[in-house]
Amino acid sequence: MTMSAVALRNGGLELIETPIPRPGPGEVLVKTLATGICGSDLHCVTHGAELLASARAVAGIELFDPNEPVVFGHEFCAEVVEYGPGSRGTHAPGTRVVSVPFLLRPEPVLIGLAGVETPGGYAEYMVLSEDLLVPVPDNVPSDIAAMAEPLAVALHAVNRGDVGSDDVPVVIGCGPIGLAVIAVLKMRGVGPIIAADFSPARRALATALGADIVVDPRETSPYDSWQSVAAASDPARYGRQTTMFPEFAFRPSVVFECVGVPGVIQQILAGAAPCSKVVVAGLCMEEDRFQPTFGVLKEIDLVFCISYTVEEFAQALGHLAAGELQVDPLITSRVGLDGVPDAFARLADPEQDAKIVITPNSNGGTS
Amino acid sequence: MTMSAVALRNGGLELIETPIPRPGPGEVLVKTLATGICGSDLHCVTHGAELLASARAVAGIELFDPNEPVVFGHEFCAEVVEYGPGSRGTHAPGTRVVSVPFLLRPEPVLIGLAGVETPGGYAEYMVLSEDLLVPVPDNVPSDIAAMAEPLAVALHAVNRGDVGSDDVPVVIGCGPIGLAVIAVLKMRGVGPIIAADFSPARRALATALGADIVVDPRETSPYDSWQSVAAASDPARYGRQTTMFPEFAFRPSVVFECVGVPGVIQQILAGAAPCSKVVVAGLCMEEDRFQPTFGVLKEIDLVFCISYTVEEFAQALGHLAAGELQVDPLITSRVGLDGVPDAFARLADPEQDAKIVITPNSNGGTS
Repeated sequence: MTMSAVALRNGGLELIETPIPRPGPGEVLVKTLATGICGSDLHCVTHGAELLASARAVAGIELFDPNEPVVFGHEFCAEVVEYGPGSRGTHAPGTRVVSVPFLLRPEPVLIGLAGVETPGGYAEYMVLSEDLLVPVPDNVPSDIAAMAEPLAVALHAVNRGDVGSDDVPVVIGCGPIGLAVIAVLKMRGVGPIIAADFSPARRALATALGADIVVDPRETSPYDSWQSVAAASDPARYGRQTTMFPEFAFRPSVVFECVGVPGVIQQILAGAAPCSKVVVAGLCMEEDRFQPTFGVLKEIDLVFCISYTVEEFAQALGHLAAGELQVDPLITSRVGLDGVPDAFARLADPEQDAKIVITPNSNGGTS
Repeated sequence: MTMSAVALRNGGLELIETPIPRPGPGEVLVKTLATGICGSDLHCVTHGAELLASARAVAGIELFDPNEPVVFGHEFCAEVVEYGPGSRGTHAPGTRVVSVPFLLRPEPVLIGLAGVETPGGYAEYMVLSEDLLVPVPDNVPSDIAAMAEPLAVALHAVNRGDVGSDDVPVVIGCGPIGLAVIAVLKMRGVGPIIAADFSPARRALATALGADIVVDPRETSPYDSWQSVAAASDPARYGRQTTMFPEFAFRPSVVFECVGVPGVIQQILAGAAPCSKVVVAGLCMEEDRFQPTFGVLKEIDLVFCISYTVEEFAQALGHLAAGELQVDPLITSRVGLDGVPDAFARLADPEQDAKIVITPNSNGGTS
C-alpha cells in the first residue's frame, strides 16, 4: 500500500509515492486532514545547509538527512486509523487529533523534518505517538485545529515576553507568526497592539486578527506610534530607573521580532524604548550584525524563542475550541498535495498569502 | 583658587590646573579622597567617537563634548568641604561620602563625563548633589568605598541575571567588572562559581575574590566545566522543556559576559546551555556579529546591562560596611593625579593591574 507525499529531494519539492508508514509500539497510524505550510519549511528549502549546520553546532544533532527525502509538515490535524502493537487505543478510529510534532522513540524523531518512514503532514498518512495525541473538539474545523501548532509558538513567545495586560506591544512583521502573536495578544486583552509590515495585504490581516494601530514602516515608525500611546501613561509606574540615563525612567516596551532577516534586531534595538523586552520569534538563518552599545545603554532584554511546551500546545487548541482565539483570516488558501510546490512559490509574495493549508486527502487516497 | 585635575583633551590625558568648582543650589563641594579608574574611562579615550555616536542614537544626548576638556572619575569617595546656597548641610564638613555619579540639575550632568566645572574624581575637588550623598561608615577605607560604584554595577548585573542560590554561574572575563560580579555572587552564596580569563594574574584575582573553578579558556572550556558540575544536578528540576529539542530539558546556565570585545557574545551563544540567561555586562564599542539561530534554537535570554539603581548603589556600600563584600584584592595599585596617564598605559596589560585607585589629594592640595 502506497500513499502520496511531497518530499524535499535534491533541494526541490517533489510529489512522490511512498509506502504507508507502519506505527511502532505505542504509535498510531493517522490520516492527514489538514497541514499548515510553515515559514521554517520554506527556510529548509532555501537555507537547509545553514539550518543543519546551526543545529549541529547548537545541539549536536543532525536535524535531517539532506541525502534522503524529507517530508515536511509539523502543523497538522489528522484522524485516527489504527494502532500499532502495545497501544491502549485511547481514541477510537475516526477521532480527529492533533499532536506536538514529535515521536516518543528512544531516538527522538522530529515530525516534519524526518524521512518517509515517519513523514510529516505533507503526506496522506503519518504515524504519531499515542501518548501525545490531543483529541480535537467537534466545533473546531480541521484546518483551524492544525493552527494549534503555530499558535503554541505565538503563545510561548507572548509568555516569554511576560506581557502584562497594560503593556502596549509592538509586533514587527505580520507573517504567520506575527499574525499569530497578534491573535494571542488580542485574546489576552493586551493593548493597544501596534503592528508593522511593508505589505498592505499583511497589514489588513493584522487588523483582522486584532492589531489596533497598523503602520507601514516606510511611512510611520512603529516606535513613534508606541511613543505617542505610551506617553499618556505614568512613567513612575513603569520605569526601571538607572543612573546612566535617568531621563530614561519611562515606560519600557515589549517588541516582537517576527521577520527573521539580518538587520531587523539592530533596527529594533535602535527603536525600542529603554529597558524593553525584545522577543525574537523570527528565524534568521544568516549571520547578523548589531551594535552591542544599543542593547547595553538601553539595558534591553533580547529573548530568543522558537518552540513551546506540551502544555502551551494543548492550551492553544483549548483556546481555539473555546472561541477565545479567532484565527480564520490567517488561512488564505487551501491546496492539495499536488499544489504544494506552487504554494511555496506563492508564499514568497506577501500580497498573495499568509498561511496556506494542505489537505492531503482531498484529491485522492491510497493507491 | 585652582586645583589639579586630569583631563581628556585632544584625545589624550593631561594634568591641568583649573578653578575649584563652585557648588550650586543644593550642592556641596567635596575633596576627592579616592577614585577608581574604570574600563569605560579607557574606552572613552580609545573609542570616544563611537561612544558619542551610540549615546546620540540611543538616547538623543551628547554624552560629552569632545572639543572641551572632560574630567573622568565616576567611582569616588570624597570628604564634605562646604555647601552651596539653599542646602541643608545634612552631613558635617569632614564627613566622608559617596554618591551616584549624577548631579540633580534641570539639565542632567553625568559626573565623570562632564567638563571642568563639574569634574569627576580625577580632580582634587568635585561638586555633588546633597540629596544623593551617602555617608561612608568609619570602618570602610576610602579606596574601598570608591568601589561601591563598580560593585553596584555587578550587583545590578547579578540581579538582572536573576541568579538563584543553586545556580552554577559562569563569568567570562575577569577584569574589574568580572571580578566584582564574582565577589557579589560569592556574597550571595551562589556556586560553585566558574570563571575564565586568558591572564594568569586575572585568574589568580578571580580565585582571591571567590571563584571556585577558574580556567584558562585556551586549555579548558568553561562550558565543559559547567557541564561537568551541572551534570550532577537534577535536570527535571531545572529544565524548561520545549518540543523542538526535548533532549534539551537539562539545567540552564547563567553566563556573565564581562569582556566586551566583538565575537564574545557569539562564543557564549555557542557554549551556553539551552534556555540559559546571558548577562552582557561587557561594553563592546564596535559592531558585533552573531548567528541568531544559536540564540533561537537554544531559546537564550540575552540581558544587556550597564548601570544600577540608587538603591543598588546604597546596598553595595552597605555590603562593604558589613564586611559581606570582600574586594581588597581588586585594588592592585594606587597613584596620584600625576600617575594617571601611566596608569592608563599599564591597564592595557592584564598581568599588571586590575583596579587602579587615584588618590588626588595625596601629593598636593589647592594652589
